[in-house]
Amino acid sequence: MSRLILALDVMDRETALDIAEKTSKYLHSIKVGWPLIMNSGMEIVKELSSLVPVICDFKVADIPNTTKLIVKTARKFGARGIIVHAFVGSDSLKAAVEEAKDMDVYVVTEMSHPGALEFLQAHTDQMVKLAKEAGAHGIIAPATRPERLKKIRKIAGNLLILSPGVGAQGGSAKKAIEAGADYIIVGRTIYNSDNPEKKAKEIMNEIEEAVF
Amino acid sequence: MSRLILALDVMDRETALDIAEKTSKYLHSIKVGWPLIMNSGMEIVKELSSLVPVICDFKVADIPNTTKLIVKTARKFGARGIIVHAFVGSDSLKAAVEEAKDMDVYVVTEMSHPGALEFLQAHTDQMVKLAKEAGAHGIIAPATRPERLKKIRKIAGNLLILSPGVGAQGGSAKKAIEAGADYIIVGRTIYNSDNPEKKAKEIMNEIEEAVF
Repeated sequence: MSRLILALDVMDRETALDIAEKTSKYLHSIKVGWPLIMNSGMEIVKELSSLVPVICDFKVADIPNTTKLIVKTARKFGARGIIVHAFVGSDSLKAAVEEAKDMDVYVVTEMSHPGALEFLQAHTDQMVKLAKEAGAHGIIAPATRPERLKKIRKIAGNLLILSPGVGAQGGSAKKAIEAGADYIIVGRTIYNSDNPEKKAKEIMNEIEEAVF
Repeated sequence: MSRLILALDVMDRETALDIAEKTSKYLHSIKVGWPLIMNSGMEIVKELSSLVPVICDFKVADIPNTTKLIVKTARKFGARGIIVHAFVGSDSLKAAVEEAKDMDVYVVTEMSHPGALEFLQAHTDQMVKLAKEAGAHGIIAPATRPERLKKIRKIAGNLLILSPGVGAQGGSAKKAIEAGADYIIVGRTIYNSDNPEKKAKEIMNEIEEAVF
């Protein structure tokens, strides 16, 4: 099974479905965010799910009750996974896992933009522990800093690690896998490519070579 | 002008429009969140905006580029304001304010659920300062802890303070206004009332009495 997740950060339904159709056989899943949902509605989650599992990258950061409503609705539209923040605390995290039922919850424990150093990064280790305690399926940790990834891998236990930042942002799939990532998230490098199908296949193979 | 904001946390379009029509003349604005958007699409923002200004409570907590896309799309659908997190750092906050243009950005600096004490609360003062520096329009700070609200008011300068937590969550509109809140956010007490119109009018008057 592929370890490549496509970050489908396009704005409209037609482009999203076109790229998904071309690349799905090389993908573990597709990650969609709010901009696509806002422009095309939650129905896009159902449509994409008929091709490949969908992870809703909603970076939920709300009180437990609202978190539950968001998770429940994502499930209703057929999402396979959902991404939530840990910095809002363990009660919100537990609410997400509880409401997710057979859907996978992935927790943001570190982000790649400069602003993440201001508040988030000091709490990464603690947030990884919270994710484990809450019964999350995995965490999100960027491929752009492999040395941090190694450290996170050590405390993450059985949690899966999904690593964005490969390609346009400068991270290497090989280095991320070697540092302990389980899945690699790639966006622009694939969906902005002249040949998304070929590019997805290439990256899938690159990841496979790093794994074995 | 009313200082009452209705948190319209209902799940479907028809109920949302019905309550908005009944209460709009007593409101400063209506706050909508992701669950309603997921169930009814962003068009609901346009529809509600024809009755009363809409604040999108999206608690955006993403990298600067995705933050921009979310803010831009909210603006496209006619939102008057948007709520973002400060925890993701100053670059994401600045991206929101920049992309908001004539729309108002409100920053979450404190939340009312128990989990908010784990990571968020220790950084409240610094996040209020970030909101000022970024040029935000206001901040969100709960009415459930008036003593904290007073402290936040002192460092918030010209930032508007929007206070949720009044009514079902136990906060008092009068106490929140006295502690320095500019606008009061009320949800269930109004939309679950047998007579939302009467209830909205009552709370609007209660706030007015506290102000003068």
